[in-house]
Amino acid sequence: MSVKNFPLDRARLEELERRYPTPFYLYDEKAIRENARRMVRAFSPLFPGFKEHFAVKALPNPFILKILRQEGLGADCSSLPELLLADMAGIRGEEIMLTANETPAVEYRTARDLGAIINLDDFTHIEFLETALGRLPELVSCRYNPGPLKEGNAIIGKPEEAKYGFTREQLIQGYRLLKAKGVRRFGLHTMVASNELSLDYHLETGRLLFELALEIKDKAGVSLEFVNLGGGLGIPYRPEEEAVSWESLAGGLKTLYDRIIVPAGLGALSIHTEYGRPITGPYGWLVTRAIHRKSIYREYIGLNSCMADLMRPALYGAYHHITVPGKEGAPLTETYDVVGSLCENNDKFAVRRQLPTVDIGDYLVIHDAGAHGRAMGFNYNGKLRFGELLLRPDGEIFPIRRSETADDYFATLNLPALENFDGRGTV
Amino acid sequence: MSVKNFPLDRARLEELERRYPTPFYLYDEKAIRENARRMVRAFSPLFPGFKEHFAVKALPNPFILKILRQEGLGADCSSLPELLLADMAGIRGEEIMLTANETPAVEYRTARDLGAIINLDDFTHIEFLETALGRLPELVSCRYNPGPLKEGNAIIGKPEEAKYGFTREQLIQGYRLLKAKGVRRFGLHTMVASNELSLDYHLETGRLLFELALEIKDKAGVSLEFVNLGGGLGIPYRPEEEAVSWESLAGGLKTLYDRIIVPAGLGALSIHTEYGRPITGPYGWLVTRAIHRKSIYREYIGLNSCMADLMRPALYGAYHHITVPGKEGAPLTETYDVVGSLCENNDKFAVRRQLPTVDIGDYLVIHDAGAHGRAMGFNYNGKLRFGELLLRPDGEIFPIRRSETADDYFATLNLPALENFDGRGTV
Repeated sequence: MSVKNFPLDRARLEELERRYPTPFYLYDEKAIRENARRMVRAFSPLFPGFKEHFAVKALPNPFILKILRQEGLGADCSSLPELLLADMAGIRGEEIMLTANETPAVEYRTARDLGAIINLDDFTHIEFLETALGRLPELVSCRYNPGPLKEGNAIIGKPEEAKYGFTREQLIQGYRLLKAKGVRRFGLHTMVASNELSLDYHLETGRLLFELALEIKDKAGVSLEFVNLGGGLGIPYRPEEEAVSWESLAGGLKTLYDRIIVPAGLGALSIHTEYGRPITGPYGWLVTRAIHRKSIYREYIGLNSCMADLMRPALYGAYHHITVPGKEGAPLTETYDVVGSLCENNDKFAVRRQLPTVDIGDYLVIHDAGAHGRAMGFNYNGKLRFGELLLRPDGEIFPIRRSETADDYFATLNLPALENFDGRGTV
Repeated sequence: MSVKNFPLDRARLEELERRYPTPFYLYDEKAIRENARRMVRAFSPLFPGFKEHFAVKALPNPFILKILRQEGLGADCSSLPELLLADMAGIRGEEIMLTANETPAVEYRTARDLGAIINLDDFTHIEFLETALGRLPELVSCRYNPGPLKEGNAIIGKPEEAKYGFTREQLIQGYRLLKAKGVRRFGLHTMVASNELSLDYHLETGRLLFELALEIKDKAGVSLEFVNLGGGLGIPYRPEEEAVSWESLAGGLKTLYDRIIVPAGLGALSIHTEYGRPITGPYGWLVTRAIHRKSIYREYIGLNSCMADLMRPALYGAYHHITVPGKEGAPLTETYDVVGSLCENNDKFAVRRQLPTVDIGDYLVIHDAGAHGRAMGFNYNGKLRFGELLLRPDGEIFPIRRSETADDYFATLNLPALENFDGRGTV
């Protein structure tokens, strides 16, 4: 069981609405900090040199990144703008890791300029990187794709159908080549799951990488400095699901480390991770309001929000818990489709969901929206993406991103040329 | 069979690249105009008062809207920013139709101010609209959801599970209520398919609405001024598929009209449509370049683009044809996954596609991207959305939208407050 809390009551929301009209994203700074601390406390004592590179893609806001940096976390970046966000937040040097694919040269150069760890997606990128930078950096990481050796999970699919990483053979050749070209420090990375709640699955990934570290030492003569276990750790979107505890994950990995890595004399190997979802996911909410009720072949509640604000239900059929502030204890007597305003029928935050009777004007809080929420928003149907508020530890509300305006939506149009644009008669 | 043309050759692309680096969207003005004219010529002589309201969501660029207005088309809008785009393009009054759902009051007021036709999604919106505007407009349209009476299609799903529209009973009640409240002009709308290539399916929708018009006359005493057949007309994404011709569609509808509408004395009824995809879809291309080749468990071509630029393959598993300028006649000897750079494994423009040997630096042109392409782009992974170029009838290239910059991506962040933001010690 996971408990679905929301830190504000209805009265506070009504007061807030005057300054910050719904919908908006709300993040709980205190909860994010406490969670990050719990994580670091679980891992750091067991693994010297441990570093969590927060997956910026999950919540690409520099205020959040700054909070996480203060708690000892770094950044996992997948593009040039994400590298710049990490830099804005004061995340420096090897606290940043660039894990990208089909990476353009400019991203590699920016990563080098920031002193970030560069994680290569493919054997051919060794030469590409050398050409892009003039010479290879001192430290290089490689991404492993275990192919049919590892089962994927529902969201990420089968590794052998995944576009990412080196094969095992390419990896051995790759480290040999990197070493021959003068690289002196080495990392290993994989990422084979998304939103996976099985502890065993993640421990199995650890075992795979630890055994691979030995093979790399044996066959390529390379002692890795770190293995990055990737991300993919899930959160309990459904109340009946259970989170994987940081302590059980760190402890389980330590057991494997002591069994595989230490006896092989590779005990200088440090552990990195790049979790996003379990760091901020449960501590963010999309706060919406019911503006329409509709009764046709089903019962509908229409929100002042839509899938442009939260794509996961439409894209993955994902479950997000919904509560109604002020009706927390009310019996769940109704069955609603809770829908947004996009002209796509999969724009449903919930399908046939049991809820208390919802009245127009009620707030509907969509839980576990602190990762891959605002970040995945789009402007389809001319929808404007909404802003982000931070609930500070002292209870104050601090705006960290404003809502988009129509002018933002029009910003890239060549409007100065529009008035005189007339193609009549040119065909 | 449909022919997959692209209007520029490799030499022209290389020359263009100096001013407009790939990737970019390219639209062919001459082809769009000729297609729009063919459509109007097919419908207008058969149906006096015919109006195609172009679905702005398909290609929300005011230059395109202006071109279409010059060819006699109006606009179908689904949000406030889309209403503003139509207005920018000089589309006026009842040439605009607002078809939205979970519509906020401000959208209804803007539509009223522009003189647009308002299409209601639900019975309860009659009162909502009256409250929002002070009084109901002279002309009101209602959206019908046929529920189990009509089969949906693969993309849009079953009508009885769709959030849109009135039931048949609500519709009759609705027109009675609107009439009692002083509304004097009436429209009827439905939209039950998406990307459907069956002519019969669309004719069947026409029959459904025509028969319903008689029932509305009979039961509510209301003579409709128009029926809007909606959109949902597909395009042949695959070369082996065939487009529905405007002439066969208009002719088939005319036969039904003459059989059902004319004998009932409702011959003043005009026909509206709101096609998007078949108006611009085949005349737009996403132009990309191969920047990586990768050989692991499959063969990959990595592009300098990603699903942030074109979501349809990832979201719907949609097929988009790909050609390689300069290699049009080359044998299709290779089997590639053509992938983008997003950290999502469904970021594949094509899976196991037969192509000629692709070299790094080759242009890859993704066809049929002129509708629901750039419009559905997002910024996930910090990806920047690319610009749009118009190929004018005289062969000139005219930029109608610039590419996003990192500053656009950061525009909504509360950056002035970032430097002094420090929560250390506040927990």
